[in-house]
Amino acid sequence: MTGIQAQFRAHIEQQVTLTNEEFDFLYTHFTEKKFHKHQYLVQEGNYVSHDYYIAQGLAKSSSTDDTGKEHILQFAMGDAWITDLQAFQLGTKATLDINCLEDTIALMITLENREKLCSDLGKMEKFFRKKTTEESINLQRRILCLISNNARDRYEDLLEKYPGILQRVSKAMIASYLGVSRETLSRLALT
Amino acid sequence: MTGIQAQFRAHIEQQVTLTNEEFDFLYTHFTEKKFHKHQYLVQEGNYVSHDYYIAQGLAKSSSTDDTGKEHILQFAMGDAWITDLQAFQLGTKATLDINCLEDTIALMITLENREKLCSDLGKMEKFFRKKTTEESINLQRRILCLISNNARDRYEDLLEKYPGILQRVSKAMIASYLGVSRETLSRLALT
Repeated sequence: MTGIQAQFRAHIEQQVTLTNEEFDFLYTHFTEKKFHKHQYLVQEGNYVSHDYYIAQGLAKSSSTDDTGKEHILQFAMGDAWITDLQAFQLGTKATLDINCLEDTIALMITLENREKLCSDLGKMEKFFRKKTTEESINLQRRILCLISNNARDRYEDLLEKYPGILQRVSKAMIASYLGVSRETLSRLALT
Repeated sequence: MTGIQAQFRAHIEQQVTLTNEEFDFLYTHFTEKKFHKHQYLVQEGNYVSHDYYIAQGLAKSSSTDDTGKEHILQFAMGDAWITDLQAFQLGTKATLDINCLEDTIALMITLENREKLCSDLGKMEKFFRKKTTEESINLQRRILCLISNNARDRYEDLLEKYPGILQRVSKAMIASYLGVSRETLSRLALT
């Protein structure tokens, strides 16, 4: 078993326990791929072929508004999933860009393979239900921080969710994720 | 079969097809309950016993900040689920209040019963995975509207997601859901 396989198995076993046979079977549904820094996983306007488990490296998803300003929805550091969920799930065109901020190793799965895997192995249906529920909890917390306009909580949530992120991405990206100006971010970082 | 049961079955069958026996079995895991307008389903600081399918009526979830201002996370009109997801899932104390804005009929399920049901009937594992994925897509869209500070898109998303909501809740609540002032809301409603 490679290091990536061992890491992925540990990731899944946070939710469900697997036999060796079950892991070997589920792993056949994924493709391992290396991406270079700056390479795109998803491009706005294209169809979205895969959901990506980021094993190593760092990717971000973002949308660009009519004025050309970028808004960051998500970072995915090691051990996290990322895709344009709406486009992937519904078969529509991407409204997000997802690109790598570092050299990245991902495990990719198509929608067809994911649905097949969930049907054939109930434990993976459970795994994806649990992961998606965790994701919804995180998204709800972020929304509450956004509508209550509490930039301090958002900043602390970011540091908790993405340990070490400040050393890996630019201040402009942090501000874009938080939905605040660079000036507000400087104030938050000082206090 | 009562009207509520038929509605609930149709709701589940949007995702998975059921036999009569399967529906009868899954329904035994839920409790039907009526709530009066103003009654609370969840109170901040208490443990959260159930996830609620709102069959009829209208409930909202919100958090109140240190200054006493209410921020609305979600409305649940007929055919929608609502709970303090984090507290329900993790067994922690609620950080949200959920109360009824109209007389409401809900089907309630405990965490224990939901997990048991998912284990015993794979179709329900699939149902909850699909519903949670839909919910994540909606939450991601709302976050993008919030960080891009696009109140117009948020307003249109609200009208699309909750048809007829303007006739059922106060303007103050709409503003609180959107995270905008009453003045901004008035401008949005006019244009």
